[in-house]
Amino acid sequence: MGKGIRFQQVGDRVETYYLIKTATKGVASNGKPFLTLILCDHTGDIEAKLWGCSPDDELAFCSQVIVHLQGEISEYRGRLQMKINSIRPTTAMDQVKVADFIRSAPISPDDMLEEITHYIFEMENANIQRITRHLVKKHQKAFLESPAATKNHHEFVSGLAYHVVSMLKIARSLSELYPSLDTDLLYAGVILHDLGKVRELSGPIDTSYTLEGKLLGHISIMVNELTAAASELKIEGEEVLMLQHLILSHHGKGEWGSPKVPVIREAEMLHMIDNIDAKMNMMDRALERVQPGEFSERIMAMDQRSFYKPSFHEPPLDV
Amino acid sequence: MGKGIRFQQVGDRVETYYLIKTATKGVASNGKPFLTLILCDHTGDIEAKLWGCSPDDELAFCSQVIVHLQGEISEYRGRLQMKINSIRPTTAMDQVKVADFIRSAPISPDDMLEEITHYIFEMENANIQRITRHLVKKHQKAFLESPAATKNHHEFVSGLAYHVVSMLKIARSLSELYPSLDTDLLYAGVILHDLGKVRELSGPIDTSYTLEGKLLGHISIMVNELTAAASELKIEGEEVLMLQHLILSHHGKGEWGSPKVPVIREAEMLHMIDNIDAKMNMMDRALERVQPGEFSERIMAMDQRSFYKPSFHEPPLDV
Amino acid sequence: MGKGIRFQQVGDRVETYYLIKTATKGVASNGKPFLTLILCDHTGDIEAKLWGCSPDDELAFCSQVIVHLQGEISEYRGRLQMKINSIRPTTAMDQVKVADFIRSAPISPDDMLEEITHYIFEMENANIQRITRHLVKKHQKAFLESPAATKNHHEFVSGLAYHVVSMLKIARSLSELYPSLDTDLLYAGVILHDLGKVRELSGPIDTSYTLEGKLLGHISIMVNELTAAASELKIEGEEVLMLQHLILSHHGKGEWGSPKVPVIREAEMLHMIDNIDAKMNMMDRALERVQPGEFSERIMAMDQRSFYKPSFHEPPLDV
Amino acid sequence: MGKGIRFQQVGDRVETYYLIKTATKGVASNGKPFLTLILCDHTGDIEAKLWGCSPDDELAFCSQVIVHLQGEISEYRGRLQMKINSIRPTTAMDQVKVADFIRSAPISPDDMLEEITHYIFEMENANIQRITRHLVKKHQKAFLESPAATKNHHEFVSGLAYHVVSMLKIARSLSELYPSLDTDLLYAGVILHDLGKVRELSGPIDTSYTLEGKLLGHISIMVNELTAAASELKIEGEEVLMLQHLILSHHGKGEWGSPKVPVIREAEMLHMIDNIDAKMNMMDRALERVQPGEFSERIMAMDQRSFYKPSFHEPPLDV
Amino acid sequence: MGKGIRFQQVGDRVETYYLIKTATKGVASNGKPFLTLILCDHTGDIEAKLWGCSPDDELAFCSQVIVHLQGEISEYRGRLQMKINSIRPTTAMDQVKVADFIRSAPISPDDMLEEITHYIFEMENANIQRITRHLVKKHQKAFLESPAATKNHHEFVSGLAYHVVSMLKIARSLSELYPSLDTDLLYAGVILHDLGKVRELSGPIDTSYTLEGKLLGHISIMVNELTAAASELKIEGEEVLMLQHLILSHHGKGEWGSPKVPVIREAEMLHMIDNIDAKMNMMDRALERVQPGEFSERIMAMDQRSFYKPSFHEPPLDV
Amino acid sequence: MGKGIRFQQVGDRVETYYLIKTATKGVASNGKPFLTLILCDHTGDIEAKLWGCSPDDELAFCSQVIVHLQGEISEYRGRLQMKINSIRPTTAMDQVKVADFIRSAPISPDDMLEEITHYIFEMENANIQRITRHLVKKHQKAFLESPAATKNHHEFVSGLAYHVVSMLKIARSLSELYPSLDTDLLYAGVILHDLGKVRELSGPIDTSYTLEGKLLGHISIMVNELTAAASELKIEGEEVLMLQHLILSHHGKGEWGSPKVPVIREAEMLHMIDNIDAKMNMMDRALERVQPGEFSERIMAMDQRSFYKPSFHEPPLDV
Repeated sequence: MGKGIRFQQVGDRVETYYLIKTATKGVASNGKPFLTLILCDHTGDIEAKLWGCSPDDELAFCSQVIVHLQGEISEYRGRLQMKINSIRPTTAMDQVKVADFIRSAPISPDDMLEEITHYIFEMENANIQRITRHLVKKHQKAFLESPAATKNHHEFVSGLAYHVVSMLKIARSLSELYPSLDTDLLYAGVILHDLGKVRELSGPIDTSYTLEGKLLGHISIMVNELTAAASELKIEGEEVLMLQHLILSHHGKGEWGSPKVPVIREAEMLHMIDNIDAKMNMMDRALERVQPGEFSERIMAMDQRSFYKPSFHEPPLDV
Repeated sequence: MGKGIRFQQVGDRVETYYLIKTATKGVASNGKPFLTLILCDHTGDIEAKLWGCSPDDELAFCSQVIVHLQGEISEYRGRLQMKINSIRPTTAMDQVKVADFIRSAPISPDDMLEEITHYIFEMENANIQRITRHLVKKHQKAFLESPAATKNHHEFVSGLAYHVVSMLKIARSLSELYPSLDTDLLYAGVILHDLGKVRELSGPIDTSYTLEGKLLGHISIMVNELTAAASELKIEGEEVLMLQHLILSHHGKGEWGSPKVPVIREAEMLHMIDNIDAKMNMMDRALERVQPGEFSERIMAMDQRSFYKPSFHEPPLDV
Repeated sequence: MGKGIRFQQVGDRVETYYLIKTATKGVASNGKPFLTLILCDHTGDIEAKLWGCSPDDELAFCSQVIVHLQGEISEYRGRLQMKINSIRPTTAMDQVKVADFIRSAPISPDDMLEEITHYIFEMENANIQRITRHLVKKHQKAFLESPAATKNHHEFVSGLAYHVVSMLKIARSLSELYPSLDTDLLYAGVILHDLGKVRELSGPIDTSYTLEGKLLGHISIMVNELTAAASELKIEGEEVLMLQHLILSHHGKGEWGSPKVPVIREAEMLHMIDNIDAKMNMMDRALERVQPGEFSERIMAMDQRSFYKPSFHEPPLDV
Repeated sequence: MGKGIRFQQVGDRVETYYLIKTATKGVASNGKPFLTLILCDHTGDIEAKLWGCSPDDELAFCSQVIVHLQGEISEYRGRLQMKINSIRPTTAMDQVKVADFIRSAPISPDDMLEEITHYIFEMENANIQRITRHLVKKHQKAFLESPAATKNHHEFVSGLAYHVVSMLKIARSLSELYPSLDTDLLYAGVILHDLGKVRELSGPIDTSYTLEGKLLGHISIMVNELTAAASELKIEGEEVLMLQHLILSHHGKGEWGSPKVPVIREAEMLHMIDNIDAKMNMMDRALERVQPGEFSERIMAMDQRSFYKPSFHEPPLDV
Repeated sequence: MGKGIRFQQVGDRVETYYLIKTATKGVASNGKPFLTLILCDHTGDIEAKLWGCSPDDELAFCSQVIVHLQGEISEYRGRLQMKINSIRPTTAMDQVKVADFIRSAPISPDDMLEEITHYIFEMENANIQRITRHLVKKHQKAFLESPAATKNHHEFVSGLAYHVVSMLKIARSLSELYPSLDTDLLYAGVILHDLGKVRELSGPIDTSYTLEGKLLGHISIMVNELTAAASELKIEGEEVLMLQHLILSHHGKGEWGSPKVPVIREAEMLHMIDNIDAKMNMMDRALERVQPGEFSERIMAMDQRSFYKPSFHEPPLDV
Repeated sequence: MGKGIRFQQVGDRVETYYLIKTATKGVASNGKPFLTLILCDHTGDIEAKLWGCSPDDELAFCSQVIVHLQGEISEYRGRLQMKINSIRPTTAMDQVKVADFIRSAPISPDDMLEEITHYIFEMENANIQRITRHLVKKHQKAFLESPAATKNHHEFVSGLAYHVVSMLKIARSLSELYPSLDTDLLYAGVILHDLGKVRELSGPIDTSYTLEGKLLGHISIMVNELTAAASELKIEGEEVLMLQHLILSHHGKGEWGSPKVPVIREAEMLHMIDNIDAKMNMMDRALERVQPGEFSERIMAMDQRSFYKPSFHEPPLDV
């Protein structure tokens, strides 16, 4: 398919397939209708304007339709834009399918589940292990599909599970360095900390917040789930409270959404591991298109910082 | 019994009964042991030093003992202190009982329960009404006894219920003024908002935070309770979510302990009514001993402000 | 006149009268001039573009002109926009008048004055009563016409008086609940707190800030007025100081425009009552067009929050 | 009299006169009463403990009494303390008077008045000149005696006038550098900016805040004075508004006590000149006792900073 | 050349020369390319759109080209815009040169250097004098050409030296007022404080940040320079440390870019003098086009404030 | 020697040796002198009061003296205190030496140096490797002895090197997880980030800040060292700039002491790894004496939080 949309630059000419992510109607200053399309492939997305569109066009070029397009990459107000030369909806003849156009984790859901299961298997405290296993099992399908966020970091299919798997690896190495850490609590905290997102977010495609997500948030949703799980499994004891505290405090501070600050070692570490993986993901994503000696786009969720790629580092790969 | 401890001033001589709230041993700079006693009656408390105490004294003058004391009110570093002239533990002969020395709400628990029940009875939405009634019933005894806090405001026996009853009255008059308010949601929010304190706090006397209180807090405790109640009563529907949101957001902001900000009208109002009653309680308490034309002690929970009683207002009553 | 502009939705066709609030000339990217009109009726306003306008059009379609228009409601960047099909200025023949197109308080100025007068009449402290009556009388006409703000809340004709009347009702019910409140001070504080706005704002229509408003603000303006009134009425005594303090501290904090924080009970309550009425007004206004189960537009002055209307609440009325 | 108290060090023996600034009774841990005396001379003050004092001592050693004392400078918790060896009240025979023990500005009130009058004389705008002259005249006596604050900076007799004279000199040189500054406005702003302190503070000795000071503050007091002065002098016009704005905004920000931020050049400069003189005064005062190569005590009003005197600077003079 | 671009108003017709500062290509909604030109003369700049430009136009109208233009000043979204009627590149025949179109300090570099040299000559401490002279000499050319910033204040050719010269004058008059200030340190601090900008910024024209500027900033660059200078000159002693501290702390606080707060008198004063000159420059620049009785544009770097020119002040001069 | 001072509890009787860390003279309220001693062994320290001490005692019991003591652990204002029954200075006969009483890293300096050298050896970029090796070599002795801080974390002999070794291990495992990290930059950043502390702090015993430390801080000191090292080694190129940026930004934000925020991946990670190791050290230290089911003392540098040890965790070991 040539190099992905994420790696194209001003002036590149393209002739390939894209999925329409969203299509919004507008009226130009000359009074004529136009469509603003967000086109994507598995590497990223780009905006395109379809000027002077007919009522038929509006029907043909809607969300989730795969199109074939000839065009050229231009720039508008500092962002790339696709200039459409010709565009048509695809048919069965084109032999393309939606799944090919969606970004997802670089590891398969099955492999991630196996890895997570392995960490659960290692746990020695039966209460912690049973609750963790129960909740993963209960939400297994959504857990393996869900993105970790609507934007910012791990905002792709299976992003949540991928985020968990990376964090587990950090958790393991920190536990080796700091023997005072309780690996059962820490692994369980990592696995469950964002699991409430399966109810906070609408799903893997065109992700938005659910009503419950907006009014309660994934932290409170998950504390509720934990309480219900413990009750169902008839588990009592301080482990339940510790797990609830891990979830509740993992954003670190009140102003970041945690009604309680961490007061056990594992909670403090969970918060920091979460930060590390989220930030590495954002920086890698921002820098992967950047040439050595140049700065990335600003990263909103990291105080609007623009990151630099040293001139003695490698240039980005084309995909 | 003469005027209460809260209304005594430097130079007053007392000869009366007090309850020992806490007794702490110390060693003076001359090397001799002494006891720091916090003495209370139903109006307030005062610190006293028992210098050069014997091992027998340490046993005799401990927490929850009622003593008979002759002394004089003095001042130390800007705070009143009781100078002990003579002190003895009481016996059955003195015919005094602990309950007489404890501060509690000015309305009886039965009257408050009746009033709260009346508001529940008025509710029109069956889901909201059933959940509210269920939770009040489940925690009825503790709810009617609990203080609303360990300090700051309504920090007395039945303080929580008294706080709720006052807030319900404000809620009713605001609802009359603003017909867009849903009284079912607002009343339920008021009644349940701090109910988690029955598990967050240790109980009505010498109140402290429980482990659960420290690690989860009354907000998350109560959201869990709500979820369990709805599940037990097999109630589904948006009312449950709204009630959870009311609890979750009633501190108003992340930095004040609410993981979500209010996004329904009733949640915003609940937060403001809570503030009004808490602040009026703190100001009234601080000003009740103050003479017209003078300033109160600083109120910690109100930005350390010291409040003024206009010189054309009434002087405090002796009790 | 059909339903008001505030209640119209995308796709609605309209044929009715509007008042031009503002008209601004622009140049389109094709080099031709156009007019951006803000059209209003008594329920709200909407933007419209008059493309390719002639010099005559520029003269005909200016601020304060009533027009007759045929058009359709469309959307541009998430905001409603009127698509003009035909438009003409009105003449005497149309028998329409500006007053019909202006939003104002739901109670008549006379009724509001009567209500406010009643509260003044109830005051027992002669100094407070005389000052309050004097200042209301002095600014009576402007007081009854002024909006309470240029935007955000009560930004309509007689909005200030309406805000005061609502606050007085809350003040009365809180005073019944908390007998320690001095109703004379509290009522006077409510009546006078924003009266400086009659000099801070330019008037009821197309409201802006006066020079005095920008350099002094309504708080300092009003403290000056109070001083002058007391001097003129030859009133001395602490009541004057208390009234000045009520005005000065009613924004609650330095960063919100109050050079002194409240240090009397009535000042603290005045600040909270002001908040309640302003916030209810903003929430009601934002939610009145919202369908059950949906979120409102963001409210700038309430931390950009978007409010939710529970799905079991009533849909908005058409007006 | 030997070197002043401000310049004495641990181990110095003293035999001289001091004024008792405050005397507070306490009870030692051995149950015996003692007096905490704050002793001062014209250079500074020091704490002393009079252990085991008799009722007669309490009467003899009270505020505003001059005593003769033999003692030694010691240290307690990082602060200097006077160890009293012998102490007696003075009589007429000692031929000492209170005025000798009080710190005041290094220039005489008459000289300062002459200097300020000179600046007023230079003003070209008659409105600004008349108002300034009127207010200085009205409060002349208090203005020339008042300290500029209760603590922090210029907290001595005539400190306010001294602060004004220093600021006028800075104002003059800035005006020479920046011709766009209106010297009439700037000089008037400097002269009047803190004049409200003559009503905010209780007077030159043992200064505290008046009720008016606590409830209104010197900024609002002065804006009121300005309004009254303009009215009395029948001056209208924008100059009055500008002068009010200068007063109102001279603390620079809402959180620093100014309800409006500066929006004219002269107001911004007034705020900065005020800062320069206050900070230089605090730093000079803190460093005047410090040896080269050492750090001063922390200055509370300058973010608790401790300042360093370079080792190549001069040592402090004895006085 | 008629009045400068900075002083032109909507409706003015112009026929004159401008320098193209930047030229950016865009695509209009009708699909045709256009150029956005920033045109400047020595008084300021203005945006212009060249609609429907040809490939030849793109080559002809690029950065640093001087053009001759006929047009009219219009307004777009509250900002002035040049409407182009005709435009052509200039040739040798036009006899215009780039230097005429660039804004620079009102004093010549030579005069400024002489003035600065004079202050260095006055220094009594040989270490401070030698280091200062060495660094000024080392960077002399860039120092005399550099702007003081990319925007906000002194953003013109030789702006840095002009800023230093103004600050030196303030420093001198403050030193006369406050004899405790060490003029050697203060003058050296003023001269060197922003000298790191010669490496932080790209140069006098179309100024941007260098890589070093973005990663280290002028403060750390200059501290390094100081260390190297002292080492090269074999100067040891506390003076070096004091000079480093002056540079390091001159932004006043951590959040303003200074890793250490000022802890010597001269450092605190340096920070305040810097502020005064920067703010006066911004206010003067904003107000120079404003008519008496009107407000300026908002100044971003001064909390978005808009400044007022009193109606009794002078109107702006045409240039 | 029995269990260390850090593990003793109220009521424990001790008869052992301690090192006097500091000795401060005071005067009791009965007028008699006393000494406040801070006694330490290799596990921690405790305060003791030596009442009624003679001038000989003052000479005998001074800093760095080893004493033999019989006493009992008591409590004063919530902190443990040693009640001295008998105390005597030691002589050669006691055969004790200062080194036995000082806390130091659990790994030997030689082993740590070997480990660090190993990481340097692994570096592939010659510029980075040479600069790192040069600086470690230059400061080797101080680097291996220095604490990492005066208090809070790693405040013991060799604490700095121990902190670096722990951080290197985390750096290695993160680099394995995130291949985009440049290990040369990250390892060099870890090794050098706090090396400036060898000049900021006074040394391993009774550590305080040097003048240079107070006026420049370890960040600026180290950036200077880096510049000098590169110059001496004649290394040019972006690696030097990157290393300087790593040092400069490792506190993460201006308000935390970094004049620039991290803008390369390795700088962001360096900041987070630093945090993790510092916080784990503080939490471990606070919890090591805490029984399961109890809370630790408050940790000042972690927002005054008190940490909980779950009741299913191990009790502390006696040492």
